[in-house]
Amino acid sequence: MTTSSPWLAELATPSDTHRQRALARQSQLTKPAGSLGELENVAVRLAALQGTDTPNAEQVQIAVFAGDHGVCDEGISLFPQAVTAQMIANFVTGGAAISVMARQLGAALEVINTGTVCAPPLSAGVIDEQVAAGTANLARESAMDAQQLAAALAAGDRSAARALERGCQLFIAGEMGIGNTTSASALACALLAEHPTHLTGPGTGLDRQGVQHKAAIIQQALARHYQQHDDDATPLTCLQSLGGFEIAAITGALIGCAARGIPVLVDGFIVSVAALCAVQLRPALSCWLLFAHRSREPGHQRILDALEATPLLDLGMRLGEGSGAAVAVPLIRSACALHNQMATFADAGVSNADG
Amino acid sequence: MTTSSPWLAELATPSDTHRQRALARQSQLTKPAGSLGELENVAVRLAALQGTDTPNAEQVQIAVFAGDHGVCDEGISLFPQAVTAQMIANFVTGGAAISVMARQLGAALEVINTGTVCAPPLSAGVIDEQVAAGTANLARESAMDAQQLAAALAAGDRSAARALERGCQLFIAGEMGIGNTTSASALACALLAEHPTHLTGPGTGLDRQGVQHKAAIIQQALARHYQQHDDDATPLTCLQSLGGFEIAAITGALIGCAARGIPVLVDGFIVSVAALCAVQLRPALSCWLLFAHRSREPGHQRILDALEATPLLDLGMRLGEGSGAAVAVPLIRSACALHNQMATFADAGVSNADG
Repeated sequence: MTTSSPWLAELATPSDTHRQRALARQSQLTKPAGSLGELENVAVRLAALQGTDTPNAEQVQIAVFAGDHGVCDEGISLFPQAVTAQMIANFVTGGAAISVMARQLGAALEVINTGTVCAPPLSAGVIDEQVAAGTANLARESAMDAQQLAAALAAGDRSAARALERGCQLFIAGEMGIGNTTSASALACALLAEHPTHLTGPGTGLDRQGVQHKAAIIQQALARHYQQHDDDATPLTCLQSLGGFEIAAITGALIGCAARGIPVLVDGFIVSVAALCAVQLRPALSCWLLFAHRSREPGHQRILDALEATPLLDLGMRLGEGSGAAVAVPLIRSACALHNQMATFADAGVSNADG
Repeated sequence: MTTSSPWLAELATPSDTHRQRALARQSQLTKPAGSLGELENVAVRLAALQGTDTPNAEQVQIAVFAGDHGVCDEGISLFPQAVTAQMIANFVTGGAAISVMARQLGAALEVINTGTVCAPPLSAGVIDEQVAAGTANLARESAMDAQQLAAALAAGDRSAARALERGCQLFIAGEMGIGNTTSASALACALLAEHPTHLTGPGTGLDRQGVQHKAAIIQQALARHYQQHDDDATPLTCLQSLGGFEIAAITGALIGCAARGIPVLVDGFIVSVAALCAVQLRPALSCWLLFAHRSREPGHQRILDALEATPLLDLGMRLGEGSGAAVAVPLIRSACALHNQMATFADAGVSNADG
């Protein structure tokens, strides 16, 4: 790794001046102090991150990273690997959940293929960042080599660069990849030194026996990983050994957003694991992350705790694709509208509390 | 009360046919079964309530009911009573939180004055349903008489009638009234046979001592109420004795909506107490209620438990005005868009789970 690697770029710094001004404004709006709850925090944070008195989340960029996982050989998913490429097609033709949400929000949606087993149908709508035709089987060997890791991280960084070009005010990373909860759980176990039973869940819908098998496969992967790395495991060696191309790309995208001053709305379990990896690499990144929702995937809470994150929503969602983050976007927009448009006590001639 | 009273009207019946069809469709959309969590439940419930295969919440009607409370004589609020009329002006001139949210949602907003101490500024935007210049002091006498109760309930019913005329697909009731958490807590205590300490909170921002005083005033009101009513207290006698004009109007509006087949998105503490009163009057009404958010007002959870309700949001909001419900509207719209627009496995040529 050289210092020219995008994941070593200097991160942007939020504006404390705008944070203070936003706090002052919130205290003057026609409502009891604090009565908009988390919406006040969101508006104040976004004002600081965007360096503005009028925070805004109209220009939303959604980047869905798709990739396949060699660990599917171990029978850890209900769905065949062909579904990854099929869903890429569904994303660009508009039938997937994230496609519907992007339309609903008027958000830009880009679909990035980081490497699938089956070629997705040719389409102008897919950005080709194929690293390889899926990762290697992380239960038996390193999921990727160092060059592949660098390529995936750089693909994410390019997505952040495109977001900046388009004037993005809020970035959402989504993911699709049959088998990727196995990869994400294994990576989280390595990053947090947790046992797989604490971070392994049903993914797309495994039963109890299926979850046990999946945890055993992850245990096997961790044994291999730690044998190779002993004491010198770093977030990057963990990502290379246990990650997916799409997970590495998201890690790169989040760092790329923080470097460019773009706030990120983090989706569910898998994106949160990528965020954890990114924050362990670059701790100053954490202030750029807003958290959208608590996934029903049971390991998510542990990841959120490690990130000291309280998400906005808890709707029992566990779909991925960035869908949970997309569903939370209107809350951010409402927070901004209230902050920017409400009258102050003075403006409206309303008496303030006498207490 | 005669059978011509609007709150005795026959309630509409949701369509089980459309409920079954919506469930079947959800199982065929390109996502793991159940992975959209509560959004699936919302879409299915709305399909049944609206009797349609394409549930929709584009046409939202927000009705904010304002009224003053004689119990303010007991020093139970930080804000002077003049604020109720001042906020009515703020609602119609567009500076209040609910005004901003109505614009944000493209929702119709009507402001209904059920009775204020100070006359609000004359404005074409306020619907005059003034019952009296505020309720009597519920700590010392019945908040209203039977005629006033009937007038307030009927004012709410007329709001539901206007919503139907405008093609409303989702109705939100909001409230404004200095002192109305005291009235709502007292009413909830009577409806649930709870002690005031369990259902009394800071409202707009009382400190611990202020909350204790408020609970003592509510205890005094309950002693008076039960002495008058002994064993024959009904939801209507509770509402007359302890309610506010705006709370009674909301009770009437919710029954009016259920009678007309209009789904209701319930806001926070005060609207939930009105909903509890309405459900105790007409148990079949409960299926017409969706719950938007859990208020930070500590008594709200007990009310939600009594209504067997799980709200969509938990953002620490405690503003009232219908603002929490308004913030939740985009979740309902997202649930509908996903239900209506996502591709099925067959449509998209995506393989389904093999498990």
